Amino acid sequence: MKLPVITLLTDFGTQDYFVAAMKGVILSLNPGARIVDITHEIPPQDIPAAAFNLLACHRDFPDGTVHVAVVDPGVGSKRRPLLVECGEQFFVGPDNGIFTWVCEREGNWRAIHLTNEEYFRHPVSKTFHGRDVFAPVAAALSKGISSHSFGEDAGEIFALESLTARTEDAGQIVGRVIHIDRFGNCITNLTREHFAGSEATAPTKLIVDTREISSFREFFSDFGKDAEPFCVIGSAGFLEIAMENSSAATMLNVHRGDRVILTL
Amino acid sequence: MKLPVITLLTDFGTQDYFVAAMKGVILSLNPGARIVDITHEIPPQDIPAAAFNLLACHRDFPDGTVHVAVVDPGVGSKRRPLLVECGEQFFVGPDNGIFTWVCEREGNWRAIHLTNEEYFRHPVSKTFHGRDVFAPVAAALSKGISSHSFGEDAGEIFALESLTARTEDAGQIVGRVIHIDRFGNCITNLTREHFAGSEATAPTKLIVDTREISSFREFFSDFGKDAEPFCVIGSAGFLEIAMENSSAATMLNVHRGDRVILTL
Amino acid sequence: MKLPVITLLTDFGTQDYFVAAMKGVILSLNPGARIVDITHEIPPQDIPAAAFNLLACHRDFPDGTVHVAVVDPGVGSKRRPLLVECGEQFFVGPDNGIFTWVCEREGNWRAIHLTNEEYFRHPVSKTFHGRDVFAPVAAALSKGISSHSFGEDAGEIFALESLTARTEDAGQIVGRVIHIDRFGNCITNLTREHFAGSEATAPTKLIVDTREISSFREFFSDFGKDAEPFCVIGSAGFLEIAMENSSAATMLNVHRGDRVILTL
Repeated sequence: MKLPVITLLTDFGTQDYFVAAMKGVILSLNPGARIVDITHEIPPQDIPAAAFNLLACHRDFPDGTVHVAVVDPGVGSKRRPLLVECGEQFFVGPDNGIFTWVCEREGNWRAIHLTNEEYFRHPVSKTFHGRDVFAPVAAALSKGISSHSFGEDAGEIFALESLTARTEDAGQIVGRVIHIDRFGNCITNLTREHFAGSEATAPTKLIVDTREISSFREFFSDFGKDAEPFCVIGSAGFLEIAMENSSAATMLNVHRGDRVILTL
Repeated sequence: MKLPVITLLTDFGTQDYFVAAMKGVILSLNPGARIVDITHEIPPQDIPAAAFNLLACHRDFPDGTVHVAVVDPGVGSKRRPLLVECGEQFFVGPDNGIFTWVCEREGNWRAIHLTNEEYFRHPVSKTFHGRDVFAPVAAALSKGISSHSFGEDAGEIFALESLTARTEDAGQIVGRVIHIDRFGNCITNLTREHFAGSEATAPTKLIVDTREISSFREFFSDFGKDAEPFCVIGSAGFLEIAMENSSAATMLNVHRGDRVILTL
Repeated sequence: MKLPVITLLTDFGTQDYFVAAMKGVILSLNPGARIVDITHEIPPQDIPAAAFNLLACHRDFPDGTVHVAVVDPGVGSKRRPLLVECGEQFFVGPDNGIFTWVCEREGNWRAIHLTNEEYFRHPVSKTFHGRDVFAPVAAALSKGISSHSFGEDAGEIFALESLTARTEDAGQIVGRVIHIDRFGNCITNLTREHFAGSEATAPTKLIVDTREISSFREFFSDFGKDAEPFCVIGSAGFLEIAMENSSAATMLNVHRGDRVILTL
């Protein structure tokens, strides 16, 4: 029994029928598909937030999973609809950078421009490609239709700013805040690897804006400690700036894109 | 392998256990059922909002789907519990107008008054028919129990105001706003058919309140244009009044029920 | 065909990738698992709210269901990860009281301290046991792995304040508000059994704070009556203080933990 997994990630919210329409289309085409919502509460048109959430959990899904990501401010215009093969999984959505960080991290990918309208739902609306293009293509993929049936090689795809932090001469690593989650934790593009090679006894500190953080913890709760910001390697594998029971983003006035400097 | 689809549409929210209780009841009775949430964020007791969302996506689901809709201010009172057969699908919920627009559009339907308590969960509470009446009936339906087992012919059912717009003499069509979605798009009961027969070169305008809209687009994003309200045939097949990146409902002070006049 | 049910109950919200990561882990280990969300909108770290919601719906799920509950302020610290067997179902989560009311009501339970790391996702993060400990253990359970494989007997577990109300001499029963739902209904720990034995003609009243409520209804809507607070046996089997179309909690200034006195 094949029960392929299809995930959905959108900025549609959960108040309207939009997500259900996509699921109806998928189940009409592949009744055996398992549909999992990643989230539908990406802030409207916030492509980096979508890219981050997909990056953070795609590896937890089985090989062969089809991830459908529809944060698509350009729907109806000339932006290309894509299928990306990467890390034994499939990614379906618009060519606007949404898959960029998954591709960068996995390192080996191939994109196909979805041009074969045979796999679309007809008539194809100009306002809802999630339902009319991406959902039916995902359903077809989940039934084992081969990737090259859907269109031609797309070549290069639109890319967001790289995830890679910059190592400077003086033992400093310059990164940035790539995401702020609902708890106000500020997720940077620094990872555990940036700490390797540093002496455990060496003083380590992170500078964000004019604030210096020298407390590094292994987990969030550390009862009895003062309410100070601290750094922790979060569950997505990135260094996060956090505070206990409050929003580090609010308390420190940190925004996505802000520069952080790690000194080992 | 039969994997029947059951959809759920309620005003229960997602904060409490209510929806999960319905799902538990369904899976206890039919472990093979596929459950899909349409939405649980219908504003409390807002029957037209539920009716619209069901109308907008029910056709995307496969034949045989059972749609359970529980926006039910009269729970425990004398309003009848219904099963409606319509368009090769089933609709289960209270007799309060919630299925009215689906029936009107599909045109051929039959309603059954759910009187056979054999298919209910016992004891039947007076406060939660979603769990005790509608969910177990939906599960039984999804297992192939025939419709007439659940009760007697219900005859006429409660109906909301018709979806049909009125064509006036002077080439004017008078409709109304039937729904406002979370983006503030104002969905009217005018459809593409209302434009057929008009000359493409003829000036077309829509009047809502005292405002005249003469911009008609094919899709939402039209980069570089001014922030003006425009009309678009939305994904549910209805003419919508929209604005780029802002709420047309707020900007134009439009409410559900407001009259719109289309001049071709 | 075995389609075991796994429910998820967390305070993760639905905006981030956290819940999806748990689902990905589960489906990677058991592609046949049926995953049902109870809710992910438990207020952050609110263990009693989670305990109540689990209590209110767990019995609606089939025997063999695995309930995963992750409201876990102590993640990464020394609080024990648990598996509880109770009422033909399984409960997986932290030892912080979250399963206490289910155990108290079902009466017969056994807890196992999850020490066998063979069933964990590796590396085990210190910040996300939902994904790395509880989800993979639930998946293994759903595949039929026997409980004693996961660790040793846990003995006593952390317990919240008992659900039992106190019967006083003078025909008075003293209870408390154990939960307030999103509609503002105040759910007490009084049940239908507390009314048994009282004469139907005897005056009955409930005192909460200084307010006396003498209206007892069978269901919520009672059209035409004044907007007065009333008591009703709610769908979870507990006496609730409610108001029509408004929040009893707000109107009466009632909070969780407030004492209620029932006089028969």
